[in-house]
Amino acid sequence: MTSVVQSRDTERDALGERFRAVRSLTDRLTAPLSPEDQTAQSMPDASPTTWHRAHTTWFYEQFVCGPEHVPFDPSFSYLFNSYYEAVGPRHPRAERGLVTRPGVDGVGRYRQHVDAAVAALLEAGPTERQRELLLLGTHHEQQHQELLVMDVKHLLSRHPFGPALLLRPEEDDPEPAPLSWLPVEGGLHEVGADGRGFRWDNEGPRHTVYLEPCEVASRTVTVGEWLAFMADDGYARSELWLSDGWQRVQAEGWRSPEYWEQVDGDWRVFTTAGVRPLRRGEPACHVSFYEADAYARWAGARLPTEQEWEVAAAGRTGTGQLLDPDRLHPGLAGDQVLGDVWEWTASAYLPYPGFRPAEGAVGEYNGKFMSDQHVLRGASCATPAGHERTTYRNFYAGGARWAFSGLRLAR
Amino acid sequence: MTSVVQSRDTERDALGERFRAVRSLTDRLTAPLSPEDQTAQSMPDASPTTWHRAHTTWFYEQFVCGPEHVPFDPSFSYLFNSYYEAVGPRHPRAERGLVTRPGVDGVGRYRQHVDAAVAALLEAGPTERQRELLLLGTHHEQQHQELLVMDVKHLLSRHPFGPALLLRPEEDDPEPAPLSWLPVEGGLHEVGADGRGFRWDNEGPRHTVYLEPCEVASRTVTVGEWLAFMADDGYARSELWLSDGWQRVQAEGWRSPEYWEQVDGDWRVFTTAGVRPLRRGEPACHVSFYEADAYARWAGARLPTEQEWEVAAAGRTGTGQLLDPDRLHPGLAGDQVLGDVWEWTASAYLPYPGFRPAEGAVGEYNGKFMSDQHVLRGASCATPAGHERTTYRNFYAGGARWAFSGLRLAR
Amino acid sequence: MTSVVQSRDTERDALGERFRAVRSLTDRLTAPLSPEDQTAQSMPDASPTTWHRAHTTWFYEQFVCGPEHVPFDPSFSYLFNSYYEAVGPRHPRAERGLVTRPGVDGVGRYRQHVDAAVAALLEAGPTERQRELLLLGTHHEQQHQELLVMDVKHLLSRHPFGPALLLRPEEDDPEPAPLSWLPVEGGLHEVGADGRGFRWDNEGPRHTVYLEPCEVASRTVTVGEWLAFMADDGYARSELWLSDGWQRVQAEGWRSPEYWEQVDGDWRVFTTAGVRPLRRGEPACHVSFYEADAYARWAGARLPTEQEWEVAAAGRTGTGQLLDPDRLHPGLAGDQVLGDVWEWTASAYLPYPGFRPAEGAVGEYNGKFMSDQHVLRGASCATPAGHERTTYRNFYAGGARWAFSGLRLAR
Amino acid sequence: MTSVVQSRDTERDALGERFRAVRSLTDRLTAPLSPEDQTAQSMPDASPTTWHRAHTTWFYEQFVCGPEHVPFDPSFSYLFNSYYEAVGPRHPRAERGLVTRPGVDGVGRYRQHVDAAVAALLEAGPTERQRELLLLGTHHEQQHQELLVMDVKHLLSRHPFGPALLLRPEEDDPEPAPLSWLPVEGGLHEVGADGRGFRWDNEGPRHTVYLEPCEVASRTVTVGEWLAFMADDGYARSELWLSDGWQRVQAEGWRSPEYWEQVDGDWRVFTTAGVRPLRRGEPACHVSFYEADAYARWAGARLPTEQEWEVAAAGRTGTGQLLDPDRLHPGLAGDQVLGDVWEWTASAYLPYPGFRPAEGAVGEYNGKFMSDQHVLRGASCATPAGHERTTYRNFYAGGARWAFSGLRLAR
Repeated sequence: MTSVVQSRDTERDALGERFRAVRSLTDRLTAPLSPEDQTAQSMPDASPTTWHRAHTTWFYEQFVCGPEHVPFDPSFSYLFNSYYEAVGPRHPRAERGLVTRPGVDGVGRYRQHVDAAVAALLEAGPTERQRELLLLGTHHEQQHQELLVMDVKHLLSRHPFGPALLLRPEEDDPEPAPLSWLPVEGGLHEVGADGRGFRWDNEGPRHTVYLEPCEVASRTVTVGEWLAFMADDGYARSELWLSDGWQRVQAEGWRSPEYWEQVDGDWRVFTTAGVRPLRRGEPACHVSFYEADAYARWAGARLPTEQEWEVAAAGRTGTGQLLDPDRLHPGLAGDQVLGDVWEWTASAYLPYPGFRPAEGAVGEYNGKFMSDQHVLRGASCATPAGHERTTYRNFYAGGARWAFSGLRLAR
Repeated sequence: MTSVVQSRDTERDALGERFRAVRSLTDRLTAPLSPEDQTAQSMPDASPTTWHRAHTTWFYEQFVCGPEHVPFDPSFSYLFNSYYEAVGPRHPRAERGLVTRPGVDGVGRYRQHVDAAVAALLEAGPTERQRELLLLGTHHEQQHQELLVMDVKHLLSRHPFGPALLLRPEEDDPEPAPLSWLPVEGGLHEVGADGRGFRWDNEGPRHTVYLEPCEVASRTVTVGEWLAFMADDGYARSELWLSDGWQRVQAEGWRSPEYWEQVDGDWRVFTTAGVRPLRRGEPACHVSFYEADAYARWAGARLPTEQEWEVAAAGRTGTGQLLDPDRLHPGLAGDQVLGDVWEWTASAYLPYPGFRPAEGAVGEYNGKFMSDQHVLRGASCATPAGHERTTYRNFYAGGARWAFSGLRLAR
Repeated sequence: MTSVVQSRDTERDALGERFRAVRSLTDRLTAPLSPEDQTAQSMPDASPTTWHRAHTTWFYEQFVCGPEHVPFDPSFSYLFNSYYEAVGPRHPRAERGLVTRPGVDGVGRYRQHVDAAVAALLEAGPTERQRELLLLGTHHEQQHQELLVMDVKHLLSRHPFGPALLLRPEEDDPEPAPLSWLPVEGGLHEVGADGRGFRWDNEGPRHTVYLEPCEVASRTVTVGEWLAFMADDGYARSELWLSDGWQRVQAEGWRSPEYWEQVDGDWRVFTTAGVRPLRRGEPACHVSFYEADAYARWAGARLPTEQEWEVAAAGRTGTGQLLDPDRLHPGLAGDQVLGDVWEWTASAYLPYPGFRPAEGAVGEYNGKFMSDQHVLRGASCATPAGHERTTYRNFYAGGARWAFSGLRLAR
Repeated sequence: MTSVVQSRDTERDALGERFRAVRSLTDRLTAPLSPEDQTAQSMPDASPTTWHRAHTTWFYEQFVCGPEHVPFDPSFSYLFNSYYEAVGPRHPRAERGLVTRPGVDGVGRYRQHVDAAVAALLEAGPTERQRELLLLGTHHEQQHQELLVMDVKHLLSRHPFGPALLLRPEEDDPEPAPLSWLPVEGGLHEVGADGRGFRWDNEGPRHTVYLEPCEVASRTVTVGEWLAFMADDGYARSELWLSDGWQRVQAEGWRSPEYWEQVDGDWRVFTTAGVRPLRRGEPACHVSFYEADAYARWAGARLPTEQEWEVAAAGRTGTGQLLDPDRLHPGLAGDQVLGDVWEWTASAYLPYPGFRPAEGAVGEYNGKFMSDQHVLRGASCATPAGHERTTYRNFYAGGARWAFSGLRLAR
């Protein structure tokens, strides 16, 4: 009996610790940003930093704090709900940049208010459901940490002079690890998350798939390899591209990954530390699904399906660059499975066999986006440590480029 | 030796017969259309009838007739190429309605010219590759016959008074066949086209899949059932919809299938025979993937994957309403597997394992559309007889409604 | 008494003759156009030929034929009303190209029906108001004859191969008449139409204006002069342009008048007789107000106001090229005041002091367009003879280029 | 000699005093705005507060400070140029809200830097041209003070809860002054600015016009009168509207002036002091030209031309509410000529006879906007004192509603 109580105390402590660590990291990420930086919205897909800070806070207030909790401000449910239709109407996404009030300081007070309420709840002893939702809330906030980094980078890139957010020394550019091909055996495999540890609803249920034998690359495609694709007119040869991709190439004038720019003939890249020379050994990053698919076709290979990716990753270890507030940029391509860049797969984002969304409004989190999106696997240099795992199913539209997204080949 | 020659003659006769029958059906379909009807383009996704008539003809001239063939008009390659990038530049799709020359008569002469050239080729003895491409060309023209019917129906519907194209007697509306559930066994199954008979490249290779056990409905969802969905506020309940679908509902004001209209409280439907009362026993038709998906969720079921659909269809026979120029409308929902309406599946349109596009420019036909589209199976009342088969993979974007598209449930 | 009756008979004959002549000219203009040509609509500002043919006919049926007239088809009031809000709802302008029924033949029968009704009315003796409205209707149809020519030319130009409508021999290109400057005296002048002869409501009332002394050019700006403007980087120098004009230059990539194209370094022009060499002595044509204004600034001059234009024109005679169905193209720039090209003025299209719209629904004809439009004076090679006069106030938006529009300088 | 020096000193002092007062007022207006408020841009026509603060400063640096002046930051010429093409490329207007750097504090330092430079210049003795341009710069900044108020009000109105910027007591609503009609004599009048005192280039040259006799209302149209227009279905009767206006009514759903909202049947108005009851005695405000024109037609009157307005105003005195940072809202409609609301006229914004733009890049200020705009006369509660005069020609597009714009009738 005592050990059970102790175990619960330990768990509660662990949950509280996790909560505080996540909250603290958000503060750490936003510390270098002025109120002006935190207000602007650079495209409808991106959100202002204040919005991320407030929305993640609203999630706890809405779903974790009990009915006796007094909301900090009743209007915040309208302002900072993202897409939970069940919770009520919400402010249009594309106009988040016009919400200048409550502002950075007001949102700071909101965060403190809810932090205190959660601390009190943890002290008083939350219900099991509250514990589940609090854990969910921390993972939700971690997801938004990655989005926040993506969105801030995008915003700064739209400034005519691309200001640097960080100081970071120049880095040398050693040769990347040689590429080898890892076999995936044909036949039946189990994929998806089992019941242990946290996972989103979309990662389950664990189920059986039949795979043809194939090989998956030991590392991601590098900047140097991408330059070869460009040099071989990759962006100008329609036969390499999906039809939708070719339309985007023409309509948007793509001729390199996002954030690359040609200065006096040399390609350079905008980073959160300013514009810098390319490092050929880094993973190619900020490419869309369409570019990844075209590259793979050019290379005589293809993208792995998410099942192939997961099976190939299963026996491997090693994590590359995850979220480091002082870096916010991929490291070198190597043998790691998780980290540096998300990896586009050939799979559409669809429910696993037997998928059931989570109960209640939080069940709107994943399932309703299961159409016309593409799965990415792995994790990136904007993914907070503790949020990465091999069953994770990230997803974006095929033309999205502002995520830290690259690719790994299969054949 | 003789029998081989005879066999080849027979085959040649059969191919020639097929060619003539397909060409004749196109003429039959367009006979009731005035030059004005054949010229207008009602939306970028649709094409004028003259364009369909000319484009299908261009396909033979471009791919079947040999290098010694004198093109009817060299400019037609520009005007009537659809999306074969490898063949050269082409006229923008959205402006096909402005191409008033060569006009209906000019296209008629073009058709005769190419018909004569193909007849001469058949007489002279085509190569094996020419025979393959000619067969391909007839299937290509059959596909465009279905598009032609869809596009003409859409055009007429945009006329303020929705003119009738056909005379068709009013029909009674008996009860549909009762719904039963057909089991699909769990385990390994083979799907995809084997080498026998014509098939598009996207139907192969035949390959193994692992399925969980499930049940598939014995017939499609009916108009009567769809009315129950509407009466239960199906179009107003966000929780039933995919996020992309809900956006479309709101942006486009969907509250019924396409072509339905409410007159004095009663729902009626625009058909090629004019506006008519609904028949409750017909399959629900002209619904988008998003609507089909929402309906299935409302019904406590789901859409089948294309693999489930194909396995369930494998052992069954029976064809419903296929293309009949005097009808152009679904019959009643029954036990048929093929016909009446295409059926949305839960599957994204992706390459099968080991897929390779066909060689040459005709290889642009299918593979390059394999992103952000949804698979439909079956066939419809606009599919010409001889073009339907259970391995056929039709595909449209999730919001498309102008195809004769319905759904079948699974669970 | 007798002479009065005779005079009325003569007037009636004259009106009947005018009606028949106008109707006949419309038929003459549309004779070379196929049903396909008559159906397509190349932009929202343009209308299909069938629409012009039907709308001008509807005008007589709606406003001239008495209440006992049986409409040919009650639905035509919806289909072929243009902008008379008072008459009831109407079909959206941008979708006129989708109205494939009643078609060319149906509209032909409609025209015959109304022609017969008007003939019967003329025989029976129309009221004075009916006579006025019939005269108005013929001027209305003449206006649409010019629009019809503009719209057909625009449609053909959108065909990828710009088909020729007419056969017309090549013409030589003599030097234009030398330019001289005609003085306009300062002080008070009378402008606007007096009560004699037909005029639109917007041409009156005649009124007094005070003008500063100025000079107006004796002829319009020529193609040769326009080439000098282009050679002097006229389309690339922002300081020559109004702000709205400069935006259009950049957004639409203007670098020459509409319908010009550069082939192997030489500028050529699309005409209704096909693509041809420029004639340096023709008036520059198919330029927008913004281009005309920029040209004038480049030339160290300005556009005349419409009052200056009218005073300068008052004492002059001479008509250039008016509508000739076998030509449809300007002649050479000379001393003519009316014909060849409309001439942009510096004036906004606003009501004259004391302006009152005509009574009834026909009063919607002019007044409600009196904002954000620019006045053109003169007449063009698409203006039917008998429709031109020096008090005529034509008007288009500043960016319109599909009218036969040029300019004359003032200083 | 001495007196001349003294006079120059006095002038210099007056100019310096004016400069300091204008700069100070900008600071006063922006004091209640947070960095977030100063960053956001609510529509392409509006600009962020930081941009106004920086752009007005840039004007002095660019045009007044001499060649030896060291720019605060060379990049600011790109960031804060508005539309002076001659000065070089500039940042796109619609993306001003993404320029989060240099931010509020950085712009504050910029302002101090330039203030010091101007002070030093004034001390050292500027050239006559520098004095002219400095005076021009202060008027330019006053113009932007009005825009700043308009833009901030618009931004706050887009916040879902329309926050109040100011505290302002509720006000009672006495009857407005009775309306009388002031005669304008027919015949020749002189209009436009003479050489005395500051004026924009567009206000001259002074010139003669001939006017028909007319009458101009003694006061502006009031809120109470506007309610009568609404109650009489003014927004639903097409015959009252210009064609362009009627399109806007339908496309944008106008049914009241901008910033009005109906709450439980009562109309209320958003102001910088929050949402408040209407005051029937205030001038109707935030109406477009199209609404003003429709109202006048409904009232059986018309808008005055700008010449009529100016002649009618010439003999009158009295200024209403001008810019007061604690109020930012019109007072009551009365006999004042200048203040409270700008007044739409019937005149298009066109050059006066003999108009010549100012020399150099500053000459881009007015002339290049002389097309497709409508003249407003008077001044508003957002116009700084010292910037109002009866010859002032303000102008906006016909659909603009975010200016403090009303109307006065003529007949």
